[in-house]
Amino acid sequence: MDVLITYDVNTQTREGRRRLRKIATACQNYGQRVQLSVFECTINQMQLETLEAKLLGIMDVEQDSLRIYVLKTGREKALKVYGLDHYVDFQDPLIL
Amino acid sequence: MDVLITYDVNTQTREGRRRLRKIATACQNYGQRVQLSVFECTINQMQLETLEAKLLGIMDVEQDSLRIYVLKTGREKALKVYGLDHYVDFQDPLIL
Repeated sequence: MDVLITYDVNTQTREGRRRLRKIATACQNYGQRVQLSVFECTINQMQLETLEAKLLGIMDVEQDSLRIYVLKTGREKALKVYGLDHYVDFQDPLIL
Repeated sequence: MDVLITYDVNTQTREGRRRLRKIATACQNYGQRVQLSVFECTINQMQLETLEAKLLGIMDVEQDSLRIYVLKTGREKALKVYGLDHYVDFQDPLIL
């Protein structure tokens, strides 16, 4: 299942900057950073629930915003990209 | 059709900051800003194509990143939100 995670963290405080780093690190373990605050993850339901719990444990719901979109038809059908694209498709054949 | 637009613009130059403002303004005309660089739009195919053309006319494909996700099953089924949520559902009854 392809999942998109976007977040805004209030970084006006040192604590906020720490939350931002921890949220990015948590997402990094499950997917790819495609934009500054946007991750694409190909994960199963259990991994999604685990990641959600981790992110909820990090964020401050009074100051931060977290949006999780499940791309039910898959990222290929859903997505159009223009300009810089940092996504690496590990399904593609690796040509050495 | 529910569409998600996410972007990263290189704002190290004045020109970049101008592009950022213009991209946000263009998106504002078609949807709602739900996070700093994330917009949700409920639009038809023609509007999507018009908006895409506008955004492509503004961005610098060498420096900026634009991702457009069509949420084929609709935002309600796709999305989970935690923390701050700036989205206003205009379909909801307005209680005065």
